[in-house]
Amino acid sequence: MAVYTEVNDEELERFLKRYAIGELMSFKGIAEGVENTNYMLHTTKGSFILTLYEKRVDTADLPFFLGLMEHLAGRGVSCPLPVRDRDGNNLNELCGRTAALITFLEGFCIRRPQAVHCAELGDALARFHLAGDGFALARPNALGPSGWPPLFQSFADQADDVANGLHDEIAAEIGWLSRNWPRALPDGIIHADLFPDNVFFIADKLSGVIDFYFACNDFLSYDLAICLNAWCFEADYSFNVTKARALLKAYGEVRALTDAERAAMPVLARGAALRFLLTRCYDWLNTPPGAIVRPHDPVAYLRRLRFHQRVSSIAEYGYETS
Amino acid sequence: MAVYTEVNDEELERFLKRYAIGELMSFKGIAEGVENTNYMLHTTKGSFILTLYEKRVDTADLPFFLGLMEHLAGRGVSCPLPVRDRDGNNLNELCGRTAALITFLEGFCIRRPQAVHCAELGDALARFHLAGDGFALARPNALGPSGWPPLFQSFADQADDVANGLHDEIAAEIGWLSRNWPRALPDGIIHADLFPDNVFFIADKLSGVIDFYFACNDFLSYDLAICLNAWCFEADYSFNVTKARALLKAYGEVRALTDAERAAMPVLARGAALRFLLTRCYDWLNTPPGAIVRPHDPVAYLRRLRFHQRVSSIAEYGYETS
Repeated sequence: MAVYTEVNDEELERFLKRYAIGELMSFKGIAEGVENTNYMLHTTKGSFILTLYEKRVDTADLPFFLGLMEHLAGRGVSCPLPVRDRDGNNLNELCGRTAALITFLEGFCIRRPQAVHCAELGDALARFHLAGDGFALARPNALGPSGWPPLFQSFADQADDVANGLHDEIAAEIGWLSRNWPRALPDGIIHADLFPDNVFFIADKLSGVIDFYFACNDFLSYDLAICLNAWCFEADYSFNVTKARALLKAYGEVRALTDAERAAMPVLARGAALRFLLTRCYDWLNTPPGAIVRPHDPVAYLRRLRFHQRVSSIAEYGYETS
Repeated sequence: MAVYTEVNDEELERFLKRYAIGELMSFKGIAEGVENTNYMLHTTKGSFILTLYEKRVDTADLPFFLGLMEHLAGRGVSCPLPVRDRDGNNLNELCGRTAALITFLEGFCIRRPQAVHCAELGDALARFHLAGDGFALARPNALGPSGWPPLFQSFADQADDVANGLHDEIAAEIGWLSRNWPRALPDGIIHADLFPDNVFFIADKLSGVIDFYFACNDFLSYDLAICLNAWCFEADYSFNVTKARALLKAYGEVRALTDAERAAMPVLARGAALRFLLTRCYDWLNTPPGAIVRPHDPVAYLRRLRFHQRVSSIAEYGYETS
């Protein structure tokens, strides 16, 4: 949410000489992204985002993320396209940071998505999954089932500071999921963080997907389970089955769920709720008071988890067999 | 340098319905301005800046500032144009703040201006002064000579914390200036804060002037004296007469300085240096340690003041009688 690294006109113009993107017209630091510095650029050839990766980011993963965006954009997914310089590189150094230039994507995120937006999302997610096929690089999901026990251990002794009895509740859920997690489902590249902040709309039409920095290889249907969590609950934690129905239906029209995927959906949804419960607990307990970025409330995901624990079939999410 | 007030899509779309600026395509909070929240908008009709005036700003002055921008833009000065809504208003409320929408001005500020930029500046400043003629509203200069003694008094007992002997040096200068300040010179609307951050260039051509929030009525040549201070000294405090010559020459080609203005220039330059010395001392002494916005070093203006004290004629600033 801040410009961590100030770039001046001289440094920027020297950097931009590497790229064939026309003459610089303006640049503004934008308050976007929690971890990186972002500038918005206008040139005579269009609008671009310049990202400087700050120190928390593992630059070893950047070729995967940028390569994926290029792969997806080349297959018709509406997402920012990394711009390659005259030598073919999509990463360069600027002000001591690794930096990338990507095309600017018009659109803006919707604070309170409705069913119409969930349908757009389902359609786009399925196309994203199909388009990911054939991408040459791979990246394990560090926040998948094998990552949950060590993440939990890192704050287990403070878990009850977040909510009474939370330690035992998480421990039991990790145990249950380790016994019930599906062994094999159709897999591929997933976005893994497709919250409403990462999806742009213009006039209720999805205009693009951003923020690929959690993308990885995992079960495709797990991505859908993340979206069920992120898009289909109201502020009072109630589940909105109309939104979920719209999401699942639109997804299925582009990529039909297999029997195994449908059967696994309640388990996957529990896993997705747990994954965000864990990271939110961690951030909640490790954010110093008065920090600029306020951590999200973990309780929202505890409530979702408890909801999914009572779900026994995908039909309860509004899924209709056609 | 921050987004103090977060605006969401619903609030923004409701606000924008008042204006005939097309459909919203995107909006980004930008890290611009110290006191206000700014968003950059793309619509189907162009790019705009949305400013939410935060509590430190006296909204009673806004009609002057916005009216001035409209007056100047209408007379060919390249500056942002406030957009009027369908009812003719250029100010509305958004998220509990007074807000204005202005056209986006392409260009960016130059960290190290050269003589070519100073010439562009001189030309633009003179045109600005001519275009200000006939503007219906007036605003006294709160940071003019009558404002210096009370501003100094507000930190006088800490002045020596900034630099040894500074208290006596400022007191003496205020006394000298009160005896030597010109009584009458051509006056009108001045920008009063035309630092390099407030002037945009594209490929060494001045593309526009921004930030009118210090504009007021005062001697026109005092504005030129501010620019001499802000544009013609190097980082080591040395005076660059080549830049000053370019500034004065280009100014004079559009608006000839009167004999009285030329004679007064060293006094005006001392006053301008003192004005920024005073506000920088105040900010230096009143900024809590660790604040996001680091105050500017007052010493830079103490050094400028001492330089001007040794100047006896405008010729020493590189001015050439044609």
